Amino acid sequence: MRYLTAGESHGPQLTTIIEGIPAQLELTTEQINKELKRRQGGHGRGRRMQIETDTVEIASGVRHGKTLGSPIALIVKNDDWKHWTKIMGADPLPKDINPDEIKRKITRPRPGHADLVGGIKYGHRDLRNVLERSSARETTVRVAVGAVAKVLLNELGIHIVSHVTEIGGVIANPETTMNKTVHEIRQIIENDPCYCVDQDASIKMVEAIDAAKKAGDSIGGVVEVIVEGVPAGIGSYVHYDRKLDGKLAAAMMSINAFKGVEFGLGFEMAHLKGSEVHDEILWNPEEGYTRRTNHLGGLEGGMSTGMPIVVRGVMKPIPTLYKPLQSVDIDTKEPFKASVERSDSCAVPAASVVAEHVVAFEIAKAIVEHFHSDQLGQLKDQINEMRKIMKEF
Amino acid sequence: MRYLTAGESHGPQLTTIIEGIPAQLELTTEQINKELKRRQGGHGRGRRMQIETDTVEIASGVRHGKTLGSPIALIVKNDDWKHWTKIMGADPLPKDINPDEIKRKITRPRPGHADLVGGIKYGHRDLRNVLERSSARETTVRVAVGAVAKVLLNELGIHIVSHVTEIGGVIANPETTMNKTVHEIRQIIENDPCYCVDQDASIKMVEAIDAAKKAGDSIGGVVEVIVEGVPAGIGSYVHYDRKLDGKLAAAMMSINAFKGVEFGLGFEMAHLKGSEVHDEILWNPEEGYTRRTNHLGGLEGGMSTGMPIVVRGVMKPIPTLYKPLQSVDIDTKEPFKASVERSDSCAVPAASVVAEHVVAFEIAKAIVEHFHSDQLGQLKDQINEMRKIMKEF
Amino acid sequence: MRYLTAGESHGPQLTTIIEGIPAQLELTTEQINKELKRRQGGHGRGRRMQIETDTVEIASGVRHGKTLGSPIALIVKNDDWKHWTKIMGADPLPKDINPDEIKRKITRPRPGHADLVGGIKYGHRDLRNVLERSSARETTVRVAVGAVAKVLLNELGIHIVSHVTEIGGVIANPETTMNKTVHEIRQIIENDPCYCVDQDASIKMVEAIDAAKKAGDSIGGVVEVIVEGVPAGIGSYVHYDRKLDGKLAAAMMSINAFKGVEFGLGFEMAHLKGSEVHDEILWNPEEGYTRRTNHLGGLEGGMSTGMPIVVRGVMKPIPTLYKPLQSVDIDTKEPFKASVERSDSCAVPAASVVAEHVVAFEIAKAIVEHFHSDQLGQLKDQINEMRKIMKEF
Amino acid sequence: MRYLTAGESHGPQLTTIIEGIPAQLELTTEQINKELKRRQGGHGRGRRMQIETDTVEIASGVRHGKTLGSPIALIVKNDDWKHWTKIMGADPLPKDINPDEIKRKITRPRPGHADLVGGIKYGHRDLRNVLERSSARETTVRVAVGAVAKVLLNELGIHIVSHVTEIGGVIANPETTMNKTVHEIRQIIENDPCYCVDQDASIKMVEAIDAAKKAGDSIGGVVEVIVEGVPAGIGSYVHYDRKLDGKLAAAMMSINAFKGVEFGLGFEMAHLKGSEVHDEILWNPEEGYTRRTNHLGGLEGGMSTGMPIVVRGVMKPIPTLYKPLQSVDIDTKEPFKASVERSDSCAVPAASVVAEHVVAFEIAKAIVEHFHSDQLGQLKDQINEMRKIMKEF
Repeated sequence: MRYLTAGESHGPQLTTIIEGIPAQLELTTEQINKELKRRQGGHGRGRRMQIETDTVEIASGVRHGKTLGSPIALIVKNDDWKHWTKIMGADPLPKDINPDEIKRKITRPRPGHADLVGGIKYGHRDLRNVLERSSARETTVRVAVGAVAKVLLNELGIHIVSHVTEIGGVIANPETTMNKTVHEIRQIIENDPCYCVDQDASIKMVEAIDAAKKAGDSIGGVVEVIVEGVPAGIGSYVHYDRKLDGKLAAAMMSINAFKGVEFGLGFEMAHLKGSEVHDEILWNPEEGYTRRTNHLGGLEGGMSTGMPIVVRGVMKPIPTLYKPLQSVDIDTKEPFKASVERSDSCAVPAASVVAEHVVAFEIAKAIVEHFHSDQLGQLKDQINEMRKIMKEF
Repeated sequence: MRYLTAGESHGPQLTTIIEGIPAQLELTTEQINKELKRRQGGHGRGRRMQIETDTVEIASGVRHGKTLGSPIALIVKNDDWKHWTKIMGADPLPKDINPDEIKRKITRPRPGHADLVGGIKYGHRDLRNVLERSSARETTVRVAVGAVAKVLLNELGIHIVSHVTEIGGVIANPETTMNKTVHEIRQIIENDPCYCVDQDASIKMVEAIDAAKKAGDSIGGVVEVIVEGVPAGIGSYVHYDRKLDGKLAAAMMSINAFKGVEFGLGFEMAHLKGSEVHDEILWNPEEGYTRRTNHLGGLEGGMSTGMPIVVRGVMKPIPTLYKPLQSVDIDTKEPFKASVERSDSCAVPAASVVAEHVVAFEIAKAIVEHFHSDQLGQLKDQINEMRKIMKEF
Repeated sequence: MRYLTAGESHGPQLTTIIEGIPAQLELTTEQINKELKRRQGGHGRGRRMQIETDTVEIASGVRHGKTLGSPIALIVKNDDWKHWTKIMGADPLPKDINPDEIKRKITRPRPGHADLVGGIKYGHRDLRNVLERSSARETTVRVAVGAVAKVLLNELGIHIVSHVTEIGGVIANPETTMNKTVHEIRQIIENDPCYCVDQDASIKMVEAIDAAKKAGDSIGGVVEVIVEGVPAGIGSYVHYDRKLDGKLAAAMMSINAFKGVEFGLGFEMAHLKGSEVHDEILWNPEEGYTRRTNHLGGLEGGMSTGMPIVVRGVMKPIPTLYKPLQSVDIDTKEPFKASVERSDSCAVPAASVVAEHVVAFEIAKAIVEHFHSDQLGQLKDQINEMRKIMKEF
Repeated sequence: MRYLTAGESHGPQLTTIIEGIPAQLELTTEQINKELKRRQGGHGRGRRMQIETDTVEIASGVRHGKTLGSPIALIVKNDDWKHWTKIMGADPLPKDINPDEIKRKITRPRPGHADLVGGIKYGHRDLRNVLERSSARETTVRVAVGAVAKVLLNELGIHIVSHVTEIGGVIANPETTMNKTVHEIRQIIENDPCYCVDQDASIKMVEAIDAAKKAGDSIGGVVEVIVEGVPAGIGSYVHYDRKLDGKLAAAMMSINAFKGVEFGLGFEMAHLKGSEVHDEILWNPEEGYTRRTNHLGGLEGGMSTGMPIVVRGVMKPIPTLYKPLQSVDIDTKEPFKASVERSDSCAVPAASVVAEHVVAFEIAKAIVEHFHSDQLGQLKDQINEMRKIMKEF
């Protein structure tokens, strides 16, 4: 299972092709659109998010509501494209036009963005050529891909949710999620402006976001993804590059603005004792092996243990600020205060949705590659078989 | 560039094949052995480490001290193999032998290890078949591979070091590394029992390790890897799976017992403001673009910025304790207190060496794949060219 | 460099995303459309080809006529989609409709097609779900991808052409291509109904096609692709999966209906002596190393030699015949004579265009991955440097 | 499933690591050595082959005769290493030695070998640095890898054999193999000096080889590999790079000196009619779907059909001749007659063994990746399930 994405932020459309989804899976645009809408929500988003409502078209791979086994192409059109055709069009410009004007040329790289290094790397002296692609707008189709993965996982009894655990120093009380199922967490966060389970913390998060906005500044935070129902034994200890946690870490870190990732107790383990960390193994005839705790976040030896997978990522504050940062014009080499391309002060709630879908894809990919997955039915049978093996071992 | 490793902890040897190292690189066994020795050092290692001194043989790919461009096979023999031939031999057992006895069969999975899930996954009811491979012994050859990568990076003006920043709650003062070069850090940590730059903290770390050992417990910690001299533009923002930080995160997380990874300020960014986080861009005619700070750890938009790459990983406490954990015998299903296979109380210093080499490989791989790399000379020229382009942009 | 394709034969569109094309390459839809048109030509195509004229849209990755370095999405719309929306739509069917009728359900697998095995594999009892994807219609976007590759190769002084050497037993005289450049061959075949250089053979090929059509039968043939200007040293002998000929063979064999591939003298070598086969090495101060002959088709030890790469593929006769083949209805298990879905009697000329573009992509991919390729300029410089190294060795 | 190989022709050993073999497979060195011996046989081999008897050591991944699921390292030592330590050693040469002498330096590239281009590519002015790796000696471990794959396939009811169909223009009568099983073919060829089923042809092949040898020349030929019992549906039509024939073609073409590959009727299809080529589909309640013929060589739409897979490859005559070819000394630029490094006049029988094992690996890889393959038992169950699905469709 693999996918490619294409599309510039203000181009005509975002496109993705997903290859390797099993046949016979029921799939509709509604299932995907629902997740795209969640990505556009959350307190702290600027105006652009409120104008657009992203919707997807399925251009191939699905017929009469069921996957064919062939590659699935998904398209999200840019509703505002008519205002950008001249600026972002693929065709060469007419000779009699001043290109710098029509291009809305950008020569001022923003710290914290791909602008400067991207310009150097690809030889773009108009940095718009960089930022149109490096923009988090691309995560729209990553969510769309993950939405397809979630539909698949759901059929296999694997459920996934994300929630926000920290924004701008406001930390949700971990006890508010303890012992809650994925389903219960989802119900709470879907009605929360910060996608946070701790309702008290959420109020303070809103305040922190508003304060940052007022100050022309931005804030980051931490998101947590929980996956229930993954059978034991996905990933492997036998070779370093087959470890499931390595793959999940790469996926999380590939989300725009993410700078750290951890599983279970994560960095806290640096000051705990071994006897406080490891998850003791129990057994009873009804369930087979169980664990007293889940401190390791559902992964041992690079493999899923059957316990919920718990992974967190930290998002840096959005680097585009009203309160500008020092930078240098690449043409004149004059210092200046970096320009504002968009106006969100906090994108952590939206990022939690992206993280959920990015993780969903990696889990689905690992499972599809692990089992015989041409058709949904085969896959279902084998997942059940694997669960039985685990219980009876 | 890629490599595979093979070998069980008590098998005859560890083997690795590295494919893709440029030709004409001067390489000797001494350069590799030096790093293997560092991996075996550090306060807190059990007795096994003191008996063995790992040394490498180069079985192919190098002739008269220079790489050929062909795959390099490295072998680390197990000096103790004569005591293990019956237990770990590849040949079928003679019929008249009690296999359970000769096999030193293990039926008691240790929490925090691959034992239980590995047994289920591969159908091993003798869990020795799992732990012989899942053992951190395998990191010996990962260090050997990284040592080759470091020899290459060194030729390209890219220098790398690791140091320990936290053990069992004792945190090194970050100011002790500030403004120190890789070379300076190396000189300090090579004479420190905890591979720590902060000498005061190191004393307390030793105490913490000894206290854990006395209590039959274990402790974890945090290691930091710093890479100087990586040219700007390695990695890319254009597609999510080409981001350099994603690859580094996967590599770090693939080290035995690592549970989190972060770049630059990492998880601290969750409570900082955007104006405090991003690295302002400066320019002067002598150096070209520079940054006022390096909070993002040398990476923007999934690409190296030219600033030092700074990545940290957290290692959980070693799961094998004298103070045993609750587990279940897989044959009898009786609960028991998990057995001790080895006796380190802290492996964080050694893990810092592994992290350094794992990162070295990923950086070398990214560079070799980025540039024309058949021969060392070509690669050198292009790295210099890239540095010039950056300066003159 | 990589690409994915999506799209069913009668679906709304074909889509492809190409990832890894260097920035700063001038690229227009005209350059691609020209090749799509060639693919639709050639004597022997049925009526469908004459109705449709495929044209491409560039949906991302190109701005104002130049590549950005970001992924390029290409779309070829199905002009006839309005007649197929009900039959091939992605949305679930309304409940009150007879699905078998609306689906134009197919239960009769055609020998020589993916129909039967594809149905078994993916669980499709309506074989339309297979044939819509397995159709050679997909090669439209493979040609589009190759057209982009050819624009790139052209900038690097690498030129490529394909021509037909055999159709239905009529063999072109190899002397007609001997000593002709890629450019000269292109000029001839563009005006030939069979894309054949030997004008006498072409007349007989037309006759063979017409005779096959009249007989309700089909014929296959052989196509040859020639690539001039590939620098020496692309590919490698150091590991089996890095050989350039292996990659080209896989690509050729992946074209619908191709059943064999050979380089240079190919299968003829089975009855020649070593002294007749190998290409003697000459040297002169002006050109450096040259070869007396090119019997090995430009490849030695899995590497390009600098001589033209010459690769041929055999295409089986189209398996859809008016003169039907014996098969079995998968529902009733009744034998029947296999149905006709389309009506070409010979697609060899079109296949030669596909082969050209498939090879173009593989050569471009190998070169982009071999050299530093973020920007076109860098790539050009290095290709020239490589040519110089070869000359001066 | 993947493997890397390392080793120079006269180096201390050949090494390979195979990653991804299922656990619980019974495996012994005898099973591998048997195939290594076959590779060394066949009429026409020079003296070197008769001196050495290659034997393998299993250095990891197997315990007490069963695979562990962990990577398998295989080693084939060079018995003659003691005579080559100075010439091929990894350590730097002592300063007081004339390196050109000790190195047995080669400056005369042989046409048809990797020598010249390899030297240019990797910057080797001593061409021994190229030919030591490009030598067909490396196929020893490719056979060892394939031998492991064959042990696995055998457990799954998949059987494979190779035989020689042409040497130096002498063509075996295809009727001699018609209707013979893999087992029957194996029995014949194991007692034939040319590994040929047609005993009359074999006599003439021996004569042709002897004549070529006497003339100081060399001859090539064609080998055929047949695989029985592959379940339907391995590979896929849904994406071009998932086609099984593409993968097999790449593998065949990666064998030293192979210049062409074809499936079923192969290049003959260029002069046959569609009605003569395609394999009509039959059905009966006992067996399910069957085919009247197997002209397509067991592959339709890039997938296995359940019929035997039949693939042929052409090997060029060995390029090292007593009767020398024109070449140029790279130091002096003087023309010379190319030197003789070894003395086989025909390696086609040995190459048939290599082809068998290379194909075995690709088939095993495709199957292991297609199904749930952690343990042998699971894999067996699923293969049987797939066969049942095919029968009942």
